[in-house]
Amino acid sequence: MNIQTPDWVKHAVFYQIFPDRFAKSETSRHQFLMMPNWEEWDAHPTPQGYKGGDLWGVVEKLDYIKDLGINAIYFTPIFQSACNHRYHTHDYYLVDPILGGNKALEALLDAAHQRDIKIVLDGVFNHASRGFFFFNDILENGPYSPWLNWFKIEDWPLSAYDGSKPANYVSWAGNRALPEFNHDNPEVREYIMRVAEYWLEFGIDGWRLDVPFEVKTPGFWQEFRQRVKAVNPEAYIVGEVWIDSRPWLDGTQFDGVMNYLFTAPTLAFTGGERVRMELVEGPSYSPYPPLSASEYASKIQELLNLYPWEIQLTQLNLLDSHDTARVLSIVDGDKASVELSTLLLLTYPGAPSIYYGDEVGLPGELDPDSRRAFPFQQHWDEHTLNYHKQLIAIRHQYPALRTGGYQTLFAEGLVYVFARILDDQEVIVAVNSDNESAKITVQAGSLKSRPEKVLYGDVKLSWEGENLTLNLPQRSGCILAVNP
Amino acid sequence: MNIQTPDWVKHAVFYQIFPDRFAKSETSRHQFLMMPNWEEWDAHPTPQGYKGGDLWGVVEKLDYIKDLGINAIYFTPIFQSACNHRYHTHDYYLVDPILGGNKALEALLDAAHQRDIKIVLDGVFNHASRGFFFFNDILENGPYSPWLNWFKIEDWPLSAYDGSKPANYVSWAGNRALPEFNHDNPEVREYIMRVAEYWLEFGIDGWRLDVPFEVKTPGFWQEFRQRVKAVNPEAYIVGEVWIDSRPWLDGTQFDGVMNYLFTAPTLAFTGGERVRMELVEGPSYSPYPPLSASEYASKIQELLNLYPWEIQLTQLNLLDSHDTARVLSIVDGDKASVELSTLLLLTYPGAPSIYYGDEVGLPGELDPDSRRAFPFQQHWDEHTLNYHKQLIAIRHQYPALRTGGYQTLFAEGLVYVFARILDDQEVIVAVNSDNESAKITVQAGSLKSRPEKVLYGDVKLSWEGENLTLNLPQRSGCILAVNP
Repeated sequence: MNIQTPDWVKHAVFYQIFPDRFAKSETSRHQFLMMPNWEEWDAHPTPQGYKGGDLWGVVEKLDYIKDLGINAIYFTPIFQSACNHRYHTHDYYLVDPILGGNKALEALLDAAHQRDIKIVLDGVFNHASRGFFFFNDILENGPYSPWLNWFKIEDWPLSAYDGSKPANYVSWAGNRALPEFNHDNPEVREYIMRVAEYWLEFGIDGWRLDVPFEVKTPGFWQEFRQRVKAVNPEAYIVGEVWIDSRPWLDGTQFDGVMNYLFTAPTLAFTGGERVRMELVEGPSYSPYPPLSASEYASKIQELLNLYPWEIQLTQLNLLDSHDTARVLSIVDGDKASVELSTLLLLTYPGAPSIYYGDEVGLPGELDPDSRRAFPFQQHWDEHTLNYHKQLIAIRHQYPALRTGGYQTLFAEGLVYVFARILDDQEVIVAVNSDNESAKITVQAGSLKSRPEKVLYGDVKLSWEGENLTLNLPQRSGCILAVNP
Repeated sequence: MNIQTPDWVKHAVFYQIFPDRFAKSETSRHQFLMMPNWEEWDAHPTPQGYKGGDLWGVVEKLDYIKDLGINAIYFTPIFQSACNHRYHTHDYYLVDPILGGNKALEALLDAAHQRDIKIVLDGVFNHASRGFFFFNDILENGPYSPWLNWFKIEDWPLSAYDGSKPANYVSWAGNRALPEFNHDNPEVREYIMRVAEYWLEFGIDGWRLDVPFEVKTPGFWQEFRQRVKAVNPEAYIVGEVWIDSRPWLDGTQFDGVMNYLFTAPTLAFTGGERVRMELVEGPSYSPYPPLSASEYASKIQELLNLYPWEIQLTQLNLLDSHDTARVLSIVDGDKASVELSTLLLLTYPGAPSIYYGDEVGLPGELDPDSRRAFPFQQHWDEHTLNYHKQLIAIRHQYPALRTGGYQTLFAEGLVYVFARILDDQEVIVAVNSDNESAKITVQAGSLKSRPEKVLYGDVKLSWEGENLTLNLPQRSGCILAVNP
């Protein structure tokens, strides 16, 4: 089939925002929070505390985001939820009042679109929450509820809050706070489709789908795609699938997935032995054991072979997220590992996604620590911020880095070199992950040009015919292009 | 102070509708109820079952309502609620999807206003429900909730659903399903005021307030009145207060209350020994012991002396409601008692309110039986329907019955006679509650006219000077006016 994905995603650099923690508006516009008991902004986050970030705060920081080079934002959930991460949806039609409500989202969409920034929301459609009306009705009315068939009730009575008794309904990952929808019920299916349509009509640019692999109803995501694209053919649909995602990436369902299959080898190659196992053994990806350059090359080639090229260009590539520890902590504080992996992220096909705060050197272990509040400026790591800006700018400047083909040129020891090629534009990227400097010679006969302009990094280079000799300092990388 | 109440209420005849039970739309317009498991419409209601009545159904029956002579409807709650009576509010901004959602209310308001029918909603502002977002957040987050101070938390942990442990929060009447708002919190106060304003701006004509006496925050209802009247100076505010309501009827708070102080003596006089004690001992009114005519006269005089006249004219008078047994059952099926009490209701100052179904002879013991579905036409008592129409029409025809003064003319044995007087218009009402026919002579020297036209009832009469002789059959009543 002819696979079509949204063109803008191929050119996007995403910023992932956890709304409670990114920015709190200077002037409170809350209608009903006159005396909120927020946790201190810069205190370590707790599993249940709120810091009071809101969408008005995001509006105020859009110029910062734009200046960083971002042109798309993926928000973790923003709908009303009795939970700071808001994955426990209480009302799918209401932006959380703490975040500013629907009005704040409207203002944010306007302000973002004025700056050519797209907005993608998190769709949590596998499960709801105990307070979600249709489930709450079952808690209140038991077998008399008109909504019985909306969830998976197994027996009576239900025990939603008392963990010492069986819940008697199916919940996600056995967490009784998250009752699973019965997607086989056409009413539920229609309800979810309409939620998706509603917010697209409201003006959002796409949906990130939470645990979509849990929904096993035949045709569900196919219909979802049809209805989403009917509202906005350029809407982005990206699934949270951590593993081989071919079942969802055949062109009839998602435009891409959260590409942890890129994350894992990239961290294993750049972080190597520094990767702290206690931070990575839990989540469903494996940035270990350490990889050599050739092992990395083959992992990347495998990944590039896995999905159609049109899909590759609209994958959501990332180094970390609210579901993992932050990359700086994973690599035990080693800044070079972060820089090298960020270099690989920003030069890979598909849309890179920066997890808010990574760009200013924010560390964070597993949840809740990975969800710290965005630091005050005096704590920013300016070097990290600068190379983020640089790498993003270079990606925007060179179409080859976005939609060009990918060709591995060299992979020996801990040195990895590849080219991105679009028509006549050829860009070379090299990474030396070794603790020693490396002098290597790359046979580049496949290239038509001789890129020698150093766009990024501290490297010495020389061309002799088809051979490019690179002298890379330890733990460094570079980007080369042809002089204009 | 100069008390002002809405003029239209003085001329209104209300119809009280329990939305789940009045009418189910012919064509289902439900978005998500494709296979509802409603209880059978004509089966006895259960405490938790739904019958699936909706506002579209009310729209379809507006012509019936109009034909009955009704020009105002009071709805028990219609907002989203996990409860068939909807007093457990889940979302104050959403008409229950089962009822057709906000769209159905909009359509209903349009259709009703086209027919000069006003719509008053039930405001349940003392307590919310366990699924109401702001309370549910406390259940989910405990001490970390930003909304802690919205309710009255006494200790941890909360036990919302397990009755074997202390709830640890204040709930209405000790029912843990109904957590009480903390009205002393200015956020809560503001929230409720805005809900009230929102629906008035949406187009409703007033608020009936559920258990408003429970809200003890100084100035709360005064502010409520100011803000309601600022949106619509003609909006009606009627409180559910069963007893002496002077604290709320000083002109700064409510326009009226549900006038159970009229209900009780009226049933005690007309029903007498027939009143079934087991149906009336529970609720907060006392239609017992049986009253003689003179006892009734003094109760009525007491009531007329209790509040300013401007308030009397906008009281909501009723014989029964969703909170009591139906009058037909209270009087042990004696239809004459119902007719006589209805005659007294429709000729009393203040707005009469007919509880849906009473007009077609629907019986009903205490809740849930008093909330039966509106009967299919083959079960209507046409005689009852006819005298309802007649009495309502007479009330509309004679302004004296609405805003005229009240003067008792005769009260002996079980015969009670009074006049309603507005300028030159004088209307006489007589009730013989006795099992024997009565021939009485009323000294009517205080009247300017000699009403001799029988508007209602089967009576023989003659005037001799100031003396009116009435020959009333047993258990009957009449209305007399001057021939035009």
